[in-house]
Amino acid sequence: MSEKSVKKVVIVGGGFVGLNAAKILGGRNDVEVTLIDKKNHHLFQPLLYQVAMAGLSPAEIAVPIRSILAEHRNIQVIQDEVTGIDRENSKVETKGSAYYFDYLILACGARHSYFGNDEWEKNAPGLKTLEQATEIRRRVLSAFEEAEKTDDRDKQRRLLTFVVVGGGPTGVELAGAIGEMSRYTLARDFRNIDAKLTRVILLEGGDGILPSFSPKLTSWAVRAMEELGVQVWTKSMVTCIDEEGVSVGNERIECATVLWAAGVSGSELGRNAGLEVDRACKVKVNPDLSIPGHTNIFAAGDMASCIGENAKPLPGIAPVAMQQGNYLGELIISELDGKKRRNFVYKDKGQMATIGRSRAITEMGRIKLTGFSAWAAWLLVHIYYLAGFRNRFAVVSQWAWSYLTFRRGARLILGKDWRFYK
Amino acid sequence: MSEKSVKKVVIVGGGFVGLNAAKILGGRNDVEVTLIDKKNHHLFQPLLYQVAMAGLSPAEIAVPIRSILAEHRNIQVIQDEVTGIDRENSKVETKGSAYYFDYLILACGARHSYFGNDEWEKNAPGLKTLEQATEIRRRVLSAFEEAEKTDDRDKQRRLLTFVVVGGGPTGVELAGAIGEMSRYTLARDFRNIDAKLTRVILLEGGDGILPSFSPKLTSWAVRAMEELGVQVWTKSMVTCIDEEGVSVGNERIECATVLWAAGVSGSELGRNAGLEVDRACKVKVNPDLSIPGHTNIFAAGDMASCIGENAKPLPGIAPVAMQQGNYLGELIISELDGKKRRNFVYKDKGQMATIGRSRAITEMGRIKLTGFSAWAAWLLVHIYYLAGFRNRFAVVSQWAWSYLTFRRGARLILGKDWRFYK
Repeated sequence: MSEKSVKKVVIVGGGFVGLNAAKILGGRNDVEVTLIDKKNHHLFQPLLYQVAMAGLSPAEIAVPIRSILAEHRNIQVIQDEVTGIDRENSKVETKGSAYYFDYLILACGARHSYFGNDEWEKNAPGLKTLEQATEIRRRVLSAFEEAEKTDDRDKQRRLLTFVVVGGGPTGVELAGAIGEMSRYTLARDFRNIDAKLTRVILLEGGDGILPSFSPKLTSWAVRAMEELGVQVWTKSMVTCIDEEGVSVGNERIECATVLWAAGVSGSELGRNAGLEVDRACKVKVNPDLSIPGHTNIFAAGDMASCIGENAKPLPGIAPVAMQQGNYLGELIISELDGKKRRNFVYKDKGQMATIGRSRAITEMGRIKLTGFSAWAAWLLVHIYYLAGFRNRFAVVSQWAWSYLTFRRGARLILGKDWRFYK
Repeated sequence: MSEKSVKKVVIVGGGFVGLNAAKILGGRNDVEVTLIDKKNHHLFQPLLYQVAMAGLSPAEIAVPIRSILAEHRNIQVIQDEVTGIDRENSKVETKGSAYYFDYLILACGARHSYFGNDEWEKNAPGLKTLEQATEIRRRVLSAFEEAEKTDDRDKQRRLLTFVVVGGGPTGVELAGAIGEMSRYTLARDFRNIDAKLTRVILLEGGDGILPSFSPKLTSWAVRAMEELGVQVWTKSMVTCIDEEGVSVGNERIECATVLWAAGVSGSELGRNAGLEVDRACKVKVNPDLSIPGHTNIFAAGDMASCIGENAKPLPGIAPVAMQQGNYLGELIISELDGKKRRNFVYKDKGQMATIGRSRAITEMGRIKLTGFSAWAAWLLVHIYYLAGFRNRFAVVSQWAWSYLTFRRGARLILGKDWRFYK
C-alpha cells in the first residue's frame, strides 16, 4: 500500500474566498497550502467606506493574513504578485518564484471599471483598497480645509460640493456618510464656512438607486438620504469628469471631489492568464466553480462570473465569497476522501445597506426592515463577521464613541507621499 | 474712554507649544487667535515610534487641531504652509493669504539632520511625521515578508538585519521594539524564516546611549536591549548609508532596513524668515522666548534654542514644549492685563525612556527606576498627557491587548502611493 501523498493547494488572494478555503484546509496532514496575496493583510471590505469617511482606522478592518492563519502549520503565506499561470505544468508564477499545485483557487477580487474612460480615475478615485480609502479621506477632509481658507464664494461652493457616482450600496454609504459628517461632525469646527451647506449629489445611471432591493425599501432609502442633505439624481449618466467637476449630459456640476462607485470588473489576472472571461472581465466558471477544461483550477468571488439558480450571475458581495470559499475548501477535502463533487449553491440570506449613523434598509426574504432596527441588524451582522476578536472590540468601541459624541475618530489628512512631508 | 481693542495672535504650528498657548488664550474676548499648521492634526509625538512599530494606528495618537480647539469661538484654525514672515508690517504670509498679528508665536518643530549627507535619507528615513511612521512600518514588515519568500541565505540575513542610527530615546525605542517584535509577535507567523534570528544593531557615535541619563540607568538599559537581541555599538560613527547597507568606518553591515534617529535641526522657517539661528538651525531666543529685536515675536519648542538655567540649551522634549506653550499664553494675557513679563523657567520633572513592552528607565531627580516600575510610570505619564479622552481609551485598550496577546494590532503594509495599488 502506497503512502498517502500530500496534495499541494495554491490559493491566490487573501480575501473572503481565500481565507475561508484556507481555514477549512488548515491542520490537515494530506494538504499543503500556499496562499499568495500582493498585500500582507486581509481586508474586511464591507466596512472600507468607514475608513474613507474617517469613522474607522485602517488597522481596525484589516488583519495580517499571516497572523490569521498562523496556527495552521500546513499553510504558508506569501506576499507576492502572481504574474502568470502555467496550466500545462500546473504552476503559478510570481516575479521570482513558481509554485506547483494539485489544486488552484483563483480569488483576486475586482477593480473599478470606468467604462473605457480610465482618464477619469485620477479625479474620481474608487474604493477597493486601504490606500484608496485614505486617499478619499484626504480629499474629502481637505476640501473642507480649503473652503475654510478662502473668501471666494464660488470657490467655496465648488469645494463644498461632493459628487458620488453610482447608486449601489457603496455609493449610498459614501454619499450618506458625507452628508452626515458635514451636518453633524464638522458643523461646529469651522469659523469661515457653514459645513451644513455642503451639497452631496448621488448620480445613478439607472432608474433608481439600490436596484436589488424592493421598491418600498428603496424609496425609504431615498427619503433618508435626502434628510442627510444628499440629492439623488437617477437616470443621470456621467459624460465627463475633470478637475473642475462632472458633466451629466448638458448639465454641469462644479465640484472639487468626485468619488467613483459605479462599475466593477474582475481582476486582470484572469484575462492575462488566458482564461475565458465575460464582458466585465470575470472568469467564466462551471457550476462547481472550476474553469472550463480544468477540473482542478477554480475561480471564485468577485473575479468569477458564477451563474446562480435564477440564471443571473451572483452578486459581488461578501456572503457569496465566504460561501464559495467554504465550498471550495470542503470540495477539496471530500475529493481527497474519494467522494464525488457537488455543485455550488448560494444560500441567499438577504441584503442590507446602511445610510448614515443609525439608518439602514435590510431585506431577508419576506422580512423588510427600515431605520434603526435595520441598522441594528446591520451592526450585529458586521460585528459578527469581522475577523478577529480584537478588531471586533476596537470597532465596537469606536462606533459607540462616534455614536455618542457625533465625532469621527480618524479625521486625519495624511500626505499622498511621505517624502513630500519631510 | 476708548473701547478695549482686540489683539491678534498668530500661532504657527499645532504641536505642544501652539496647542497649549491656544488653549490658554481660548475664550478670551480681547484676543483673536489664528493657528496655522500645514497638517490638519496635532500629533502626540512621544508615541510616534509605536505607529512605526505597528503597535498603534495613526488615528490613535493624532487628533484634528480643529476639533481640539472647536469650543473656543475666538480661535480659527487654518491648514496652510507659512511661506514668509514680514516683521516690518507684522504679518505672516501663506501661499494665498496674509495674517496680521500683534503677537506671533513660531513653533513648527524640527526635522531630521543628516549632517550634510542628505542623500542618506531615502535609505534611512527619520521619524517625525505619521507619513514617515507608516513608511517605516512598511519597510520593517516588508523586510520579513521578503525574507520569507527567498531561499537565498545571504539575502535572508541581509533582510533580517536592522540598523538604527542614534542612541537617544527614539533610537532606543525603535531598536527595542524591533527586537521585541521579531522575538515575540512575529516568531510564530513565518514558515521559511526564524524571525528570532533577526539582528538589530543600534549605532551611537558617542560614548554611550541615552547620555542624558545617569550611568547606572544607562547600563541597565544596555543589558535590557541585549536581552531583546539588540546589539549596542557605541563610538560608532556612520560613514556611509546606501541601498545595500551601512558602513561604520572600515566595518560594513549588510542590511535592508536602516532607520535614522540621530541628528535634529530646527524647522527651516526660522532661517528662511531671516531670523538668527544656531548651528542646528534653531532660532535664538531671549529668556522670555522673544526673538532679538522683536518683543512681540516668539519662538519655542524644537525650533528654538532656549538656554536653560545650567547654561545649556533645553532638550527637544515634550515637557519643554508644553511648558513653553503655557508660558507664552500666560505671558500674552498678563501683558494685556498690563502686567510685566517674567522669564521662562523650565521645571524639570525628570525623564524616561522605554525599552520594549514592559521595561523602561525613569529618572526624577534622585528617584531612579528601572524595569517594570519604570515602565508603569512611563505608561501613566503618557496616558495622562494624550490629548482627548477617546485616544486615551483607545490607546489603553490597544496596549492591554498587545500586552496580553503579544500581538501587534496595526501590522499593515500600505503602499507608498495609492495609485500604485489600484
